[in-house]
Amino acid sequence: MGGIKAKPWGGRFQEELDKFFEEFSESISFDHELALYEIKASLAYAEALKEAGVLLEEECLAIKKGLLEIEEEIKAGLFLFRKEYEDVHMNIEKALFEKIGEVAYKLHTGRSRNEQVVTDFRLYLADRVKEIKIELKSLMQATVDKAEEYYGVIMPGFTHLQHAQPVLFSHWIMAYYEMMKYHFQRLEDYEKRLKICPLGSSAFAGCAFGIDRKKLAEKLGFIEPTQNSVFAVSSRDFALELLFVLSLIMLDLSRWCEELIIWMSPEFSFIDLPDRFCTGSSLMPQKKNPDGAELIRGKASSVNAAFNQLWGLMKGLPLSYNRDMQEDKPPVFKAVKTTWQCLRLMSLMVSGLILKKENIEKHLSQGYLLATELADYLVSKGIPFRKAHHITGQIVYYAEKEKKSLENLTLSEFKAFSDRIEADVYNWLTIENAIKRREILGGTGFNMVKQAIELAKKELSERFNV
Amino acid sequence: MGGIKAKPWGGRFQEELDKFFEEFSESISFDHELALYEIKASLAYAEALKEAGVLLEEECLAIKKGLLEIEEEIKAGLFLFRKEYEDVHMNIEKALFEKIGEVAYKLHTGRSRNEQVVTDFRLYLADRVKEIKIELKSLMQATVDKAEEYYGVIMPGFTHLQHAQPVLFSHWIMAYYEMMKYHFQRLEDYEKRLKICPLGSSAFAGCAFGIDRKKLAEKLGFIEPTQNSVFAVSSRDFALELLFVLSLIMLDLSRWCEELIIWMSPEFSFIDLPDRFCTGSSLMPQKKNPDGAELIRGKASSVNAAFNQLWGLMKGLPLSYNRDMQEDKPPVFKAVKTTWQCLRLMSLMVSGLILKKENIEKHLSQGYLLATELADYLVSKGIPFRKAHHITGQIVYYAEKEKKSLENLTLSEFKAFSDRIEADVYNWLTIENAIKRREILGGTGFNMVKQAIELAKKELSERFNV
Amino acid sequence: MGGIKAKPWGGRFQEELDKFFEEFSESISFDHELALYEIKASLAYAEALKEAGVLLEEECLAIKKGLLEIEEEIKAGLFLFRKEYEDVHMNIEKALFEKIGEVAYKLHTGRSRNEQVVTDFRLYLADRVKEIKIELKSLMQATVDKAEEYYGVIMPGFTHLQHAQPVLFSHWIMAYYEMMKYHFQRLEDYEKRLKICPLGSSAFAGCAFGIDRKKLAEKLGFIEPTQNSVFAVSSRDFALELLFVLSLIMLDLSRWCEELIIWMSPEFSFIDLPDRFCTGSSLMPQKKNPDGAELIRGKASSVNAAFNQLWGLMKGLPLSYNRDMQEDKPPVFKAVKTTWQCLRLMSLMVSGLILKKENIEKHLSQGYLLATELADYLVSKGIPFRKAHHITGQIVYYAEKEKKSLENLTLSEFKAFSDRIEADVYNWLTIENAIKRREILGGTGFNMVKQAIELAKKELSERFNV
Amino acid sequence: MGGIKAKPWGGRFQEELDKFFEEFSESISFDHELALYEIKASLAYAEALKEAGVLLEEECLAIKKGLLEIEEEIKAGLFLFRKEYEDVHMNIEKALFEKIGEVAYKLHTGRSRNEQVVTDFRLYLADRVKEIKIELKSLMQATVDKAEEYYGVIMPGFTHLQHAQPVLFSHWIMAYYEMMKYHFQRLEDYEKRLKICPLGSSAFAGCAFGIDRKKLAEKLGFIEPTQNSVFAVSSRDFALELLFVLSLIMLDLSRWCEELIIWMSPEFSFIDLPDRFCTGSSLMPQKKNPDGAELIRGKASSVNAAFNQLWGLMKGLPLSYNRDMQEDKPPVFKAVKTTWQCLRLMSLMVSGLILKKENIEKHLSQGYLLATELADYLVSKGIPFRKAHHITGQIVYYAEKEKKSLENLTLSEFKAFSDRIEADVYNWLTIENAIKRREILGGTGFNMVKQAIELAKKELSERFNV
Repeated sequence: MGGIKAKPWGGRFQEELDKFFEEFSESISFDHELALYEIKASLAYAEALKEAGVLLEEECLAIKKGLLEIEEEIKAGLFLFRKEYEDVHMNIEKALFEKIGEVAYKLHTGRSRNEQVVTDFRLYLADRVKEIKIELKSLMQATVDKAEEYYGVIMPGFTHLQHAQPVLFSHWIMAYYEMMKYHFQRLEDYEKRLKICPLGSSAFAGCAFGIDRKKLAEKLGFIEPTQNSVFAVSSRDFALELLFVLSLIMLDLSRWCEELIIWMSPEFSFIDLPDRFCTGSSLMPQKKNPDGAELIRGKASSVNAAFNQLWGLMKGLPLSYNRDMQEDKPPVFKAVKTTWQCLRLMSLMVSGLILKKENIEKHLSQGYLLATELADYLVSKGIPFRKAHHITGQIVYYAEKEKKSLENLTLSEFKAFSDRIEADVYNWLTIENAIKRREILGGTGFNMVKQAIELAKKELSERFNV
Repeated sequence: MGGIKAKPWGGRFQEELDKFFEEFSESISFDHELALYEIKASLAYAEALKEAGVLLEEECLAIKKGLLEIEEEIKAGLFLFRKEYEDVHMNIEKALFEKIGEVAYKLHTGRSRNEQVVTDFRLYLADRVKEIKIELKSLMQATVDKAEEYYGVIMPGFTHLQHAQPVLFSHWIMAYYEMMKYHFQRLEDYEKRLKICPLGSSAFAGCAFGIDRKKLAEKLGFIEPTQNSVFAVSSRDFALELLFVLSLIMLDLSRWCEELIIWMSPEFSFIDLPDRFCTGSSLMPQKKNPDGAELIRGKASSVNAAFNQLWGLMKGLPLSYNRDMQEDKPPVFKAVKTTWQCLRLMSLMVSGLILKKENIEKHLSQGYLLATELADYLVSKGIPFRKAHHITGQIVYYAEKEKKSLENLTLSEFKAFSDRIEADVYNWLTIENAIKRREILGGTGFNMVKQAIELAKKELSERFNV
Repeated sequence: MGGIKAKPWGGRFQEELDKFFEEFSESISFDHELALYEIKASLAYAEALKEAGVLLEEECLAIKKGLLEIEEEIKAGLFLFRKEYEDVHMNIEKALFEKIGEVAYKLHTGRSRNEQVVTDFRLYLADRVKEIKIELKSLMQATVDKAEEYYGVIMPGFTHLQHAQPVLFSHWIMAYYEMMKYHFQRLEDYEKRLKICPLGSSAFAGCAFGIDRKKLAEKLGFIEPTQNSVFAVSSRDFALELLFVLSLIMLDLSRWCEELIIWMSPEFSFIDLPDRFCTGSSLMPQKKNPDGAELIRGKASSVNAAFNQLWGLMKGLPLSYNRDMQEDKPPVFKAVKTTWQCLRLMSLMVSGLILKKENIEKHLSQGYLLATELADYLVSKGIPFRKAHHITGQIVYYAEKEKKSLENLTLSEFKAFSDRIEADVYNWLTIENAIKRREILGGTGFNMVKQAIELAKKELSERFNV
Repeated sequence: MGGIKAKPWGGRFQEELDKFFEEFSESISFDHELALYEIKASLAYAEALKEAGVLLEEECLAIKKGLLEIEEEIKAGLFLFRKEYEDVHMNIEKALFEKIGEVAYKLHTGRSRNEQVVTDFRLYLADRVKEIKIELKSLMQATVDKAEEYYGVIMPGFTHLQHAQPVLFSHWIMAYYEMMKYHFQRLEDYEKRLKICPLGSSAFAGCAFGIDRKKLAEKLGFIEPTQNSVFAVSSRDFALELLFVLSLIMLDLSRWCEELIIWMSPEFSFIDLPDRFCTGSSLMPQKKNPDGAELIRGKASSVNAAFNQLWGLMKGLPLSYNRDMQEDKPPVFKAVKTTWQCLRLMSLMVSGLILKKENIEKHLSQGYLLATELADYLVSKGIPFRKAHHITGQIVYYAEKEKKSLENLTLSEFKAFSDRIEADVYNWLTIENAIKRREILGGTGFNMVKQAIELAKKELSERFNV
């Protein structure tokens, strides 16, 4: 078949590709990551062609044997991907031809790279989503474990990075469990839209050789075939949806890391991170930096950028396939890897996190954390809340000037602001009682937090399966 | 209560707000859109306080009466929102006080704006999502109707904006039906995460007055209460998820609009849009521009930017509430409105779209749309596909030089490239037969497209309910 | 002229605009901000037409008189912008016609909205850039003033939010002066590309009535006319460049605000902000939140989103004008206003900022800020730096275990790590001496910082003119 | 020096780095690109240390010899970068130690990676900017050459992708010359801010060993040293500004590519691209796709995403260095490379572009390109423009119904709309005369376009130097 040019589509072309352009336009340097999925899909497609009468039994066997050999080479790292063959599809087609000769060319009957690439991509992502769910679950577990380990520790809760109200540390970090729980759910919902099989769509008009698409889809582990062949090759919504979920996961990790970084500053000193997740300075010998947390916070931005890149790439593209879409893979591959790594490191850091309880306790007396309690006390004495709030504000201002905490004011000092205040105010105004008064579903009460931890453990063992 | 400063939180402050800062920081100019939801949530909260024993029956009645009066004023456009009261919550609190006096202040017992705003926001979005689903369904219907109206029209299908293969017009636009179908599904999945009720979370530690959160959630139409009070006030993932789905909808509309714009150029002239959706030029008297499509394409970018804005805003924020988060509403409000409008206009334009069948037919003879058919013909004669592809490429190159279409080549011309070609090639090489050979699930065959239209009609009447 | 339809381009149209589409597509709700610039450009254009012999002297006079009347009405807030006239250009054209009759229609000879809108937009931005430069300069001034006010105060310098080395507070905040200095320069560079005049480009092919474009440009305050009429109406690079500079300004403000927020937390307590820039909590009476800083940090994201929106909008648009481009103004208007406001508030906050010197001083003893000094001491005794660094690291680890600061170690403790350490180490290891050893250009030495402040004052009075 | 742990900062650490974290946090896999600049800066720094009396003459010589050997190894591709040494700085430090022993450790006296990385980065970017300017200039040259080659060819000019007015092809593409001219200028302005030298800033407080920063800056080719050491290590505005300019270049390329893609569709068929820049289809043998243009359009989005990534990364980071900032390099490196490649390919494609003049000519008769001319004709007969516009609109509507072009209407047909129309209308209404009437600065008149081409050639030889 000497007349055929190097390119599989070269028949009508009279000029060799420009070398710079060839280098510019190749995708094998990244889409080789799809190679095993290309094999998997090709094996199933060969079978489908045989059942459709396009391939003879022995042709199908030869093709499958060849593909399996290539698969072994890829797995062993021995397969040489070559830029002059452009992409993963053509690299494998060429290799198959070299192994089994012209029969290899029959595998491509009625098949287009347009559908191959989305099939491979969906198969690839299905595996990646599974791996991410595993790490997500690990992080949820680490969170619950840490909440359990430090159950009972009270810390200042913050709004606006100002002391607001006392809260159980366990309650605070269980907020992250809640976020991750919904991310897990989002991934599950996404899988319904991911696991649909484009094979049989051909370039966009549908395959002209009557293969059984339902059977093919099923064999490859898809839920069902795609319902419209133009849609199948044109849309990248399935990749964008994953990038969205990953960007949301990373967003929440960036927030958590911000907290870790602030909490580890010498001024806060709420926590310590094990040496193994920190690095020092090449100049300043005393430094121990929370690099892991900083890097996750920084990498969050790259995952969001990946979403933007793909969205911008697709914007305003007419149907069906356009070559721009080749550039969909690098941001997705990168984001998937980054998120997976960050989840894993986050689990490790959360597991290793040490609470400096004595320091935290010291901070509880700063910043009038019990002011809301005093207002609530006044409410309990019949004063409308907004008025109670105002009176308390004045007491705080007074106490601040006097450099006293609320619980250290004398009764007569209190009474100067409201004669409803009695001696029982001192029992009311303790950090523990503030916690105890919040035994409401979702609140920071001791029992409620214990229940939330138990529920989470149950969910992890029964509900969130990978 | 003369001593209370204008601000509800003013007790501890000794200085009036800077006027420029007051103007800078107000949110009432946009969060007034939440006013009716603030009323709704407050009515339910008053009831809950009463049941918890915080309000007397008559206090509750007074509060509810006052709130209902305010609601009437808002609906009638008579309520005056004032910037010096900062936000929607304080505007309504103040108004209630003016109506019913100090008992108004009891409504705020155990309640924080942190939870109020997310409660209102979630209620607001639940209504907006419903409206968007209605428009999405309209567009799906318009698409199916148009596919049915022009059933049978064959057009050149494109890849790379080059002629690729013939395809039924109906099949091509049903790709958009498919996209919208998944968007509808995404919105449904999203609603599960949207409809959870933060009320009872207080500032973040949980309400100290034992209200029944499950009952409260149910009364407001939520599926259930949030499970962690810190999460409830800290997370904006629910807003980001909606922005994502909207940005995806807009992305697909931008692609469709690009096609309409290209198809309406004089060179293509595949379609016409009714005058009522086009505008002219102030300079050039002959112009009739597809402005509607251009504007939708342009507005797509604003919806994606809204997603980015909120993502960037939230990145790296520690828990729980930070004032940055006030800025979450403008991008969401804007994106919701824009998407709703664009979906509606798109439905109108799709319904009005006129296919210029004679022009399209003329273009069918350009660009060797039947080349794949010829390759498939060679395959049917036993030539491996890649070889058949190559031979066809050479024939195309020859035909192009001779300025002939494939079907106009003589048999001897064909035979110069392959002696397997016989006279039956002419019957094979017709546009209609190309379509007919694609009676595969999801393909462009006449029957398949008819079935797809029927299925869509069934889904619209049975599956996609709003 | 009864036959003319409401729309100025209506001649060839047979159908009224769809009402929903009319509302959807209008731009007057935002481009009315350009009205005074539209007048300004029209006055100059009328003159140009007269000089080109298109308008008679009296026609020109009538037009100018009419335009000036309209200008007065706009300034007085009496001009009614109407959505059915689409945009600012048509609103003013219509008003002029109502004032002076048919001669008004002559003003539009050879003129297109495509060029009008970019002319107005460039004029508008030239004024806005000037205003932003004024605020930028104010902030630079406020920074220098604050650096001078607290000259001499030493604080812990941070890397990774960990204590690193002692630094003059003045030196630290002068870093922001440096950032703003470059932003000022960027705006100046930008003005060269902004101030070019598109008038005379017509729709894109150039005006067919020989007006003098150079004179026209000069009269409007532009540097020169645009050099290519297709470029003039097609490009929005001038808007994107401004959005970029604004997003960079906001980025640096977001960083500064993050520092203020962290420094104002009770744990840090480095600074206080005046009450007038803080707000409280509706629930928690003690709260005093740095809302101004939080809002600026949050709004930064909206300015960056504006850049993205416009970039995404323009991506892949063919030349010349497309209706998508109408949507260029809302993000630009918004970003300009937001940045101006944030710069202003930042100046106010920086001016009001109170350094809590005693608290800062307490923190100087935390975190081994002098470790680098000890390493440098060892270097001064002939030990290669990396070794000195290592020895110091071990001393820090020892001191930390012993709960001692470096300067409190005994000489024999020191000598256990290196016998090069002598009694002079105690004089070396003071915070003041650490500062004094950094009298290097750009460093934190007392003299150098004084010089930097003086230089900045000189630049503000001589170099940075608005 | 056996006691020193592998990490240069390891003195105070008691635990080995977690292996997963070590892999996660390394940057050598990308910052090795800075290696030659690290050498260059180190050579100059050694000299500066010698002059400051920190290094002896022979120590300095030894260090320089060692560095030069490493440089040779790097250039020859023989240098082994190792992940366990984290980054480029430590890899080279280690290698130097292995070559010359402990004296190597003296090179790091007073120097921090915080300043090293920005010094290297700025040096690296200075070279890249130069390369990009070369390619930008090539593209400008290619544009002018193509404008000259096809000087005289008239094509339909578009607004809204509708036929608007006739225009010289050369004029149309010179719009891109104009865009690129400003990008070149932007890069020049940027270089002023890029070429400032951070060396001597140390970690952020300034070097404690009196090196001569001005001399150092000069020796490295910088304009001057940075003025504030905290600024020097904290800001990444210099990287963002470059990403902005690159994203703007790519934006304009995306627009140009969109035009090429549309123009190459069979319906337009205005142009052809050489085979060497196109690829075919694996399925459809006739396909010849403008892949180069599509890829550039798609890659534009990645460059904009790089800007967003870095902006998002930096948002809200406190000063001075944070580890997040390590992630600044991958997006910059990628964007620089992509833009350089795209500019180069664009030059090649523009040079190779073939105008299909006969096809274009055919399209000139479509779409009433002369309607504005007819309106202008009526203006020349004394009818106010807006009225003339309206009359012409009606004539166009009539002509369209009659399926006639304007110039084919009879005089009596014309007169039915306006009796001012005389026989001279036919000479007025020619495509050539429409061009000729636009001999205005920046317009499409034959002479003006010739002049613009000549001016551009002059600018390319005299003004735009690299």
